[in-house]
Amino acid sequence: MSTLFEKTLNKEIPTPLYYQLKEILLEYISNNHEDLEAPIPTEQELSAHFKISRPTVRQAINELVYEGFLYRIKAKGTFVSRPKIQQEFLQVLDSFNNEIKKKGMVPSTRVLNIETVRSDKSISEALHMMEGSKVIKLQRLRFANEDPIVIVDTFLPYNDCRFLLDSNLEQESLYELIEARLSLKITRAVRKLEAVLAGDYESQMLNVSQGAPIQFIKSTTFLSNGKPIEYSLAKYRGDRNTFTFEMNR
Amino acid sequence: MSTLFEKTLNKEIPTPLYYQLKEILLEYISNNHEDLEAPIPTEQELSAHFKISRPTVRQAINELVYEGFLYRIKAKGTFVSRPKIQQEFLQVLDSFNNEIKKKGMVPSTRVLNIETVRSDKSISEALHMMEGSKVIKLQRLRFANEDPIVIVDTFLPYNDCRFLLDSNLEQESLYELIEARLSLKITRAVRKLEAVLAGDYESQMLNVSQGAPIQFIKSTTFLSNGKPIEYSLAKYRGDRNTFTFEMNR
Repeated sequence: MSTLFEKTLNKEIPTPLYYQLKEILLEYISNNHEDLEAPIPTEQELSAHFKISRPTVRQAINELVYEGFLYRIKAKGTFVSRPKIQQEFLQVLDSFNNEIKKKGMVPSTRVLNIETVRSDKSISEALHMMEGSKVIKLQRLRFANEDPIVIVDTFLPYNDCRFLLDSNLEQESLYELIEARLSLKITRAVRKLEAVLAGDYESQMLNVSQGAPIQFIKSTTFLSNGKPIEYSLAKYRGDRNTFTFEMNR
Repeated sequence: MSTLFEKTLNKEIPTPLYYQLKEILLEYISNNHEDLEAPIPTEQELSAHFKISRPTVRQAINELVYEGFLYRIKAKGTFVSRPKIQQEFLQVLDSFNNEIKKKGMVPSTRVLNIETVRSDKSISEALHMMEGSKVIKLQRLRFANEDPIVIVDTFLPYNDCRFLLDSNLEQESLYELIEARLSLKITRAVRKLEAVLAGDYESQMLNVSQGAPIQFIKSTTFLSNGKPIEYSLAKYRGDRNTFTFEMNR
């Protein structure tokens, strides 16, 4: 707690005071408040130390609660949420199961639906097919330690992948099944990221509020022979996931 | 419009009907509705074609409006928003100005504040400095064609970068200034991405609603000699930006 109360706000700069406090609290949450069972300092303590009004303190805390960094328990105080999962999905081309296992958690998958559909323009472009071609549409909800983490819709060319209709996709890895069947490795991915909001469906599936932040990642993955084999639309809970990676020039 | 009305909903699968319609509309918005001056089909037309209730149609459209893909004009109809800017910030280590110029838009920058502060734990770890070291804190709002696109807080080691206090950072490129002064290239970046929500401050600066989606990107960039030279916290408007990149294994 010491580091929090070593800081002061700067009333000379144009950044609003509530926002300066919010940044100080975020730094404190990330680095210095390791005991998730202990509440953070009260509004009154923060207001007295930083010499700002209670409503200003409340605005900072409210936004951090709204964003999922803090949560309140009535008559007990304000607590720090569990840290986000550091996904390497953007750095390493690996299966969801391997990613989650590497983080020391238990992955699991629920297949919501699998069916054959006709490709629309986006799918056709991604998979280099004629519009209206047969594709497999696989919808999965994926968990880490029983928490829902991501909903994924995956489209795959029917001709290469129809064996998946008879596979156990709750137990077996999609990538391993494809690589084994086609005797080719999955070696490249093109990804497109957007920050979006949870609608009614995402909020129900991922167990978050409507309007919660979602990391939406569209990917096309390619086999070692250059052929696109998968187009996927993944919606990750923003409150439970960060994505790290490195780039060079 | 034809492609939209070639589609049908599937009442046999567990995916909600409103969500199926939302996916069809998103595909239509992305690929087939190129005239931004013309409204999309009315609720009534969609309801009649897809054989679903008006409230179901409205739920799909409301979420797309809320997420910024569509907007309504009273008595005129529902229109498709401008497409998002395809940023290559995750693919190519380039300046904001060059990125925006490559997209055929005019970049500009407003310096909100520049001051000398003491590094906290996050900044110190990123820049490999002792906690409490002097750093320059630069706050900028950056525009494409006069639309605010991103707020960036940048922290730089004072000893190497104090010359920036006297530079014109609204006209000159930060990367070019640093590379010229230190006679070293910026060659590597580590980035961390999160989907978050706009608070009061972000909504005012970026001209979005509170609760709008924000792509939050923390970066550390390194010089060719391996030294970290910049730690930045960038908040991109989710409704105006997508981020594309490619990865291999």
